[in-house]
Amino acid sequence: MRVLGIDPGTATTGFGIVEIKEGRLITLDYGTIKTTAGIDMPLRLLKINGELNRLLEEYQPDVVAVEEIFHHKNAKTVVAVAQARGVILLAASLAQLPVAEYTPLQVKQAVVGYGQAEKRQVQMMVQRLLGLDELPHPDDAADALAIAICHLHSCRINDILKTTRNRI
Amino acid sequence: MRVLGIDPGTATTGFGIVEIKEGRLITLDYGTIKTTAGIDMPLRLLKINGELNRLLEEYQPDVVAVEEIFHHKNAKTVVAVAQARGVILLAASLAQLPVAEYTPLQVKQAVVGYGQAEKRQVQMMVQRLLGLDELPHPDDAADALAIAICHLHSCRINDILKTTRNRI
Repeated sequence: MRVLGIDPGTATTGFGIVEIKEGRLITLDYGTIKTTAGIDMPLRLLKINGELNRLLEEYQPDVVAVEEIFHHKNAKTVVAVAQARGVILLAASLAQLPVAEYTPLQVKQAVVGYGQAEKRQVQMMVQRLLGLDELPHPDDAADALAIAICHLHSCRINDILKTTRNRI
Repeated sequence: MRVLGIDPGTATTGFGIVEIKEGRLITLDYGTIKTTAGIDMPLRLLKINGELNRLLEEYQPDVVAVEEIFHHKNAKTVVAVAQARGVILLAASLAQLPVAEYTPLQVKQAVVGYGQAEKRQVQMMVQRLLGLDELPHPDDAADALAIAICHLHSCRINDILKTTRNRI
């Protein structure tokens, strides 16, 4: 299974493509989609849409995993991030891909095993789990990799639960 | 000039297409795009995108006018509405149309001349300005027509200001 993890944002959208093969996590790509602050929102969303479609085309993921938005963030930021998120959900939907959504708490729990983990702890675990030579950066790309890992982790738990249920 | 006014929403997105011809406002169409509450957000956004593209194709507007989002609304609603708004801005951008944005206050001031006007007062003025046989409904469609009128009004004021400046 190949997952495209996305950490949505208007200025910076993080992405990370992770595959699980014979129980091993393989990183195919990660990075950010950046848009210029000065330009109009519709053009910034156009860029996010274009870059995202390029990633979907190039890596053909099986699923898109997206972080849910913190409701208590600054209200203006929430609107901007949610607009970018809408464009991301639409792109996945147009590509007929399933979308999985996780809260920041779920992502931290899946990667570090502790919902209140610090950003750096998450990055260190992402590096270790993916066997990367260095800490993944920038932050948004590291977050996107963490979301992809969270999805693969959650699928594995569901598989184990299914197998256990079948045995009972 | 032909304007597509949009009042964004996830459950209901209002739309109104208004044209100005020889100083008269002409209503070409208005209504709502509805999505079912039970289905997943990516599929709801897919429906909004599809219907919107149909309207853009059918009416070939010169500009899309969209209402800005109230920041003090319920935070969960803000995220949902902003996601729909992102899809709308992207559709306009992909169609290479300019997007004009107005606050609810600006819309009320343009239509009624008073920023604190009640919903019904706005609807009555929309009916009168567009010469409709009855009050436009539902509310979201009436709001979308008001946004379209607001844009045409604001263009006319800008034209007058330009002419006045040229005379001075």
